[in-house]
Amino acid sequence: MLWDILNIIGIPAFAISGAIVALEEKYDLFGLYVLGFVTAFGGGVIRNVLIGIPVTNLWSQGNLMLAALIAMSIVALFPYMWGNRWRKWILFFDAVGLSSFAIQGALFAHKMGHPLYVVIVATVLTGIGGGVIRDLLAGRKPAILREEIYAIWCIMIGVCVGSGWIVSELGLYTLLVIIVILRMMSVHYHWNLSIYRKHPSV
Amino acid sequence: MLWDILNIIGIPAFAISGAIVALEEKYDLFGLYVLGFVTAFGGGVIRNVLIGIPVTNLWSQGNLMLAALIAMSIVALFPYMWGNRWRKWILFFDAVGLSSFAIQGALFAHKMGHPLYVVIVATVLTGIGGGVIRDLLAGRKPAILREEIYAIWCIMIGVCVGSGWIVSELGLYTLLVIIVILRMMSVHYHWNLSIYRKHPSV
Amino acid sequence: MLWDILNIIGIPAFAISGAIVALEEKYDLFGLYVLGFVTAFGGGVIRNVLIGIPVTNLWSQGNLMLAALIAMSIVALFPYMWGNRWRKWILFFDAVGLSSFAIQGALFAHKMGHPLYVVIVATVLTGIGGGVIRDLLAGRKPAILREEIYAIWCIMIGVCVGSGWIVSELGLYTLLVIIVILRMMSVHYHWNLSIYRKHPSV
Repeated sequence: MLWDILNIIGIPAFAISGAIVALEEKYDLFGLYVLGFVTAFGGGVIRNVLIGIPVTNLWSQGNLMLAALIAMSIVALFPYMWGNRWRKWILFFDAVGLSSFAIQGALFAHKMGHPLYVVIVATVLTGIGGGVIRDLLAGRKPAILREEIYAIWCIMIGVCVGSGWIVSELGLYTLLVIIVILRMMSVHYHWNLSIYRKHPSV
Repeated sequence: MLWDILNIIGIPAFAISGAIVALEEKYDLFGLYVLGFVTAFGGGVIRNVLIGIPVTNLWSQGNLMLAALIAMSIVALFPYMWGNRWRKWILFFDAVGLSSFAIQGALFAHKMGHPLYVVIVATVLTGIGGGVIRDLLAGRKPAILREEIYAIWCIMIGVCVGSGWIVSELGLYTLLVIIVILRMMSVHYHWNLSIYRKHPSV
Repeated sequence: MLWDILNIIGIPAFAISGAIVALEEKYDLFGLYVLGFVTAFGGGVIRNVLIGIPVTNLWSQGNLMLAALIAMSIVALFPYMWGNRWRKWILFFDAVGLSSFAIQGALFAHKMGHPLYVVIVATVLTGIGGGVIRDLLAGRKPAILREEIYAIWCIMIGVCVGSGWIVSELGLYTLLVIIVILRMMSVHYHWNLSIYRKHPSV
């Protein structure tokens, strides 16, 4: 159930972030769907390979594909809605996808009884897959490697779950919301330490 | 049997397309073989991972490797034969590889009894693997994402197979030939809607 | 045992090469750890997928992660130690990682009784994974494809192991050392035939 909900959140979120990057790169309609799908399910494939879920499960998840299709169609139908704010929307959906996948990785590693630093590594590696694939396919350097603030939130998820502090469903949903809010605040208030920022940081 | 034949078509085709891209990028002899192999078998690995075939099967397919080796050696021995027409040859072998892998993905998803849109997604994702890997390794944006005409042919394969309209061996071979012809006609007559085209489209 | 030792050599070596590339690309501290981990374990994931080891084994190898963490921390603590010699250090650790992973791939394919050319392909493909992932994530063309001298050493490993000439533990360690030395000599004496070299080759 929890797993399903994290997927229902993470896969469309990555699909939307891929679709918006496709708009930004001036890809056409099919490029938009392909990049969205590859981002969402490429991220899912990496996560499945890393935590040992059969990859073919993807093809049984018709509902997730439908969700991704609908999500991308909304982006495609209202391309101007994302206007100048593309970057923020990409960051938002990227944050949602990353957080939900990272929580899955953290839970998996924690349940196997691994020590904290292994949980943290599993959290980061499962969380970043979708975003890294999206950026590579768009011909960009992966944002995760340029903006280390991402990694801080991933590590926080790993610490909270790996230490056994947050493992209840309610706790994990709360963690998801908090991480997404922190991520967006770090954008708004320029906590981001990236060398590519244009405004002075706080 | 059908599976074997699609592999015997698809793997050398991707190997040749990788080798020609290596020539274009001024890679040396070993770069040519490495890029050709990684394109052919990287595409195969992605397809196997996606549709649940053990990846280690690759190492039992000595004949396919020999076929890829011979195909790449022909490219290496006659580098000038491909001359100014590199781009068309890349597109031709890419079309053959993509179509045969896409048909495999479509058949697999169809046999599992999935609804049409899942078959289409499986078709596109298994078809594009080799070309995407080749382009990433050559430092290029994946052509599949810039030239949406590719996706149309992939989707056509998905629709024909996923709707159960074409599933006989003869029908699938015919489909393969038709898709490759349509792909090449779309190049010749500039059906390609890519923003990189130099000539007016029809 | 042999397997463990090759991992203990290969994974930290790739981690360090990733960390140094991160320094070179001006990534920050977390970028350094992420790139190092993804290089080391991405290379391991590719190798495991290719030779049929369950990928989830990675998460049981806490000691390897600790080794990678310590190795990257040394790079992070003494960033200036690598100074102008970054390139040589990257090449050194890349050579160590590549050789140890390549020997694993060669051994695996040889033990399955494959003919020589299959062993060579398995050797090259398992050896190059880590370096290719590192270069793609740093926004670079994979060095393996530009500097064909790499492939020569990989093929030498494949020939020595695949022909059954070197299969004893002592022999394989010696092979590892020899390949790393040959690789570094090819840098020092400009045996490298890359079109990017600045000095005349011997």
